[in-house]
Amino acid sequence: MVRWQPGAKLRLQAAALELYASKGFEETTVTEIALAAGLTERTFFRHFQDKREVLFGGHNAFQEPYLSGVATAAAQLSPLEVVISAIVGAADFFPEERRAYARQRQLVIDANPGLQERELLKLAALATALADALRNRGVADPGATLAAESGVTVFRVSFAEWISENSIEPLEQIERRIFGELFSLTAPGRAGAR
Amino acid sequence: MVRWQPGAKLRLQAAALELYASKGFEETTVTEIALAAGLTERTFFRHFQDKREVLFGGHNAFQEPYLSGVATAAAQLSPLEVVISAIVGAADFFPEERRAYARQRQLVIDANPGLQERELLKLAALATALADALRNRGVADPGATLAAESGVTVFRVSFAEWISENSIEPLEQIERRIFGELFSLTAPGRAGAR
Repeated sequence: MVRWQPGAKLRLQAAALELYASKGFEETTVTEIALAAGLTERTFFRHFQDKREVLFGGHNAFQEPYLSGVATAAAQLSPLEVVISAIVGAADFFPEERRAYARQRQLVIDANPGLQERELLKLAALATALADALRNRGVADPGATLAAESGVTVFRVSFAEWISENSIEPLEQIERRIFGELFSLTAPGRAGAR
Repeated sequence: MVRWQPGAKLRLQAAALELYASKGFEETTVTEIALAAGLTERTFFRHFQDKREVLFGGHNAFQEPYLSGVATAAAQLSPLEVVISAIVGAADFFPEERRAYARQRQLVIDANPGLQERELLKLAALATALADALRNRGVADPGATLAAESGVTVFRVSFAEWISENSIEPLEQIERRIFGELFSLTAPGRAGAR
């Protein structure tokens, strides 16, 4: 009989992150995670396929708010504006109470090249999915790809700042500022001489 | 006694690519590559560490023209202009006679998820190295990261077009056009409403 454990997923996630940070990702076993969370291995595998999924979740869950943001953006927006509205809109996905967790998660990832690659691939997949979503709105290439990649770059830079040691600014606000930096990078005054 | 084989590296590369394309990357052995090139396995390993290195070469050789382009760009250029001049300048690295090879190489990569990841990581590493090179010129973040990532995105989109089936335009020209698209993406008329 499968008994539903209230909060089991969050408890497993917290226990796993704690162990990854203290012992190292490779060195931690699922048995230890379950034990630390006061749950069984079986419960672990009901929530996660493996140790990595604790850190990365499902692709679909991560991409969903961005993709629905693109799909529902106002018709008159330019491709880059669509991406901006989708990315800034999805910032709710990272509220203040997730910041400490996200910081600790990043430390675990930074300590492991395999996890760093996984994180890069996750963001590359997001850019690909965003470009597809723009094409579904009728945006032609190369504009769709350029807008999607630019958006993901802004997200990545903003997210890194959000989880940096002394940051207290909300992610949404950082993202708006970094999008502004992207615009000023290509502003006529600075790039006109190309 | 090690005898130097004139053109051995190119012969091995051509034989390998042929086999990767016909048999599949995973299914090809170094023994077969050497045999097809009329050389020994020992000669193969003098030129390449493994089967993958035939497709990806050394990181340093690939990054070098871009990084020296950043280091030697004129002092008055904006960060993005520095990146543009480095990327467009390195287009010599992909002359017309490399196009057919690059096309066949891409088909091999497209057929193998592991190789696709390797290619993504190679370009991510280029962006990281370009951002470092910009910081060495005194460019602050987030500008350094944004300019480097934007440049690599333009390179990737341009390169994909350069090796597309009917393209005859030189890479340098494609890159200039795609940089132009990037600028128009953020042009005031289209993005002012953000």
